Amino acid sequence: MIGKEIGEMLLENQENFLIPAEMVAHVQVNNHLDHALLVLTKVGYSVIPVLDHEYKIKGLISMPMIIDAIMGLEKFDYDKLSDTCVHEVMQTDFATINNPYDLEEVLHLLVNHAFICVASEDGSFTGIVTRSEILKGTNRIAHEFENEFDVIKKENMKKSH
Amino acid sequence: MIGKEIGEMLLENQENFLIPAEMVAHVQVNNHLDHALLVLTKVGYSVIPVLDHEYKIKGLISMPMIIDAIMGLEKFDYDKLSDTCVHEVMQTDFATINNPYDLEEVLHLLVNHAFICVASEDGSFTGIVTRSEILKGTNRIAHEFENEFDVIKKENMKKSH
Repeated sequence: MIGKEIGEMLLENQENFLIPAEMVAHVQVNNHLDHALLVLTKVGYSVIPVLDHEYKIKGLISMPMIIDAIMGLEKFDYDKLSDTCVHEVMQTDFATINNPYDLEEVLHLLVNHAFICVASEDGSFTGIVTRSEILKGTNRIAHEFENEFDVIKKENMKKSH
Repeated sequence: MIGKEIGEMLLENQENFLIPAEMVAHVQVNNHLDHALLVLTKVGYSVIPVLDHEYKIKGLISMPMIIDAIMGLEKFDYDKLSDTCVHEVMQTDFATINNPYDLEEVLHLLVNHAFICVASEDGSFTGIVTRSEILKGTNRIAHEFENEFDVIKKENMKKSH
């Protein structure tokens, strides 16, 4: 369980944690790889969500996935870029969380994922939570917590150390 | 300044913070873009360091930088992949810190950078510090800090809130 005061300070800026769907670049399942490559290049992100025509989140696509898909034994097969759909290449096992999300779950997932997709109950894409926003909270705690609180080692912890 | 007890708990796992150079995929300044693309695809990272022949860090290269460099007005110019060197395309304004590094500086830099390059005084590449390791520290603090410490709001903070 997350400590009460630490949790509160970490969440102080919570309204900014979720980057809303309309601010997140995405591609659609039926887009071709050349389009996805173009979008990834333009936005400069390494991975973006893949949505279906109902705006439901279906996967993630990254440049390594695309380049890997067109890589032959000796050279790249560039024709595949316009022949292959994003859904044939995208990653489908990825973490999503529901909104409202649980801070504890988010903290664990972000250790191994650069961002976590947030979806409503019916799978509609709501936005992403990124490591960057949580790190702002870490900064705040590192700098402010002991200014705001007196911190005293608990007796039983003294004995066990 | 970073609080004493918070800082100590954040740094509990410090020996794992620095991922040493020999564990970090890199390319050399004179490699061609097709080689860099291959390395980036194989390792699955979005950005990797660029080193010179003396193992000094000179820049960062990412897939978006490479694809952007071969993107013409209407289509990709794939011939450029084997004609262009990494140093012509790499990002040269990036954050590096010296070893031993300062936690406060690292925390600030990681808000806007996925990883920070660590170099010795002469510019030799020592390794990287990543968001993932710091987030493990955030998890530890969120879960353990208030188990180990009694935390009491300071009197002057009560008044000002």
